[in-house]
Amino acid sequence: MNRAEGVRPRKRRSDGERSREAILRQAAELATVAGLDGLSIGRLADAVGMSKSGLFAHFGSKEELQLATVDWAVDLFDTEVTGPALAAATGRERLDELVENFLRHVVGGYPGGCFFASIVTEMDTRPGRLRDRAVEIMRGWLELLETTVAQAQAEGTIAASEDPKQLAFELEAAMFLANVLFVATRDQAVLDRARVAIDARLAAAAGPPPSDGTS
Amino acid sequence: MNRAEGVRPRKRRSDGERSREAILRQAAELATVAGLDGLSIGRLADAVGMSKSGLFAHFGSKEELQLATVDWAVDLFDTEVTGPALAAATGRERLDELVENFLRHVVGGYPGGCFFASIVTEMDTRPGRLRDRAVEIMRGWLELLETTVAQAQAEGTIAASEDPKQLAFELEAAMFLANVLFVATRDQAVLDRARVAIDARLAAAAGPPPSDGTS
Repeated sequence: MNRAEGVRPRKRRSDGERSREAILRQAAELATVAGLDGLSIGRLADAVGMSKSGLFAHFGSKEELQLATVDWAVDLFDTEVTGPALAAATGRERLDELVENFLRHVVGGYPGGCFFASIVTEMDTRPGRLRDRAVEIMRGWLELLETTVAQAQAEGTIAASEDPKQLAFELEAAMFLANVLFVATRDQAVLDRARVAIDARLAAAAGPPPSDGTS
Repeated sequence: MNRAEGVRPRKRRSDGERSREAILRQAAELATVAGLDGLSIGRLADAVGMSKSGLFAHFGSKEELQLATVDWAVDLFDTEVTGPALAAATGRERLDELVENFLRHVVGGYPGGCFFASIVTEMDTRPGRLRDRAVEIMRGWLELLETTVAQAQAEGTIAASEDPKQLAFELEAAMFLANVLFVATRDQAVLDRARVAIDARLAAAAGPPPSDGTS
């Protein structure tokens, strides 16, 4: 809650809103450890020290709680990863920042690493609204990488011969595996392996550097 | 069960062994859909049409059942992926076959894709024997890729300047993401993206082709 209080919202939040924010933060952290399916109202009530009936008043059902948690995690991801990256001046800078912000988020975001990697692998075989939402978010992230590659191509920093879908897949592959291995082993070396892979891939995609003298 | 009967073992299996084999196959399939944690003795009893007490006679506890299922999945992976690949004549051929056999296994192996990708992402934050085993298997697979890269380097088909750990990470990254996206979307294009990525990476790792005339 201290972290939430550090942010000064435009208008004063009601107790209800503040409490909802704190509950969803706890819910998102729990989901990366116990799974979205392990996010029962009873278990979350224990974790936040509220009554089950109090939580029901907020969310109504387990599925509503799960969907609200996913939305909260999307907002956090926008705040920590995509938002700051998209503020960069060029496509190539945005791409570098998407990667770097993601890898930092893997370490500092949740106890179980990337929330979306966690839910997409959990929900992939369970048809329903949660699965659809998880797949939609994963698709959206890949499309953001593709669009950013295309912008860098339009600016001439990535070769026109590259297929944006293919390049986005390769960047995401290194980030995704780094997340999985970091959560499983807590070995920072895997994050560096992703950086090395992505730097080399983007250097190859850029083609030969422009001749700019010795400066 | 028909598939199990198609294999003729060296000695006739007892009813007990045959039934154990059939139970574990069903258990492994179920685990890739419901998770290893969803693999309760009650749920599996329903799936195989046995009594809970009958299953208890085989496994004794949920954890024993889960560990036996992991061992069974290791055996299947050896049969379908690593075994045939390691029979190839050269390091480079072994590497190509590890990749191709893995991608074929993703499509044809289990309803939930790669068993080990499934359990490592489920168990990564849950300390215990299952987590340790999942991490150990994942490490073993990466080490197999590294060793095979090193063999190809010794044979001169991969440049000595490549770091086997780094290259193994990059090959696995493409395979891992292809598995996740295929299970989530059933889109075969993601498997081809992994193939394109890996072929290009291995071509770059090989350095310039040897000059061998026009044949």
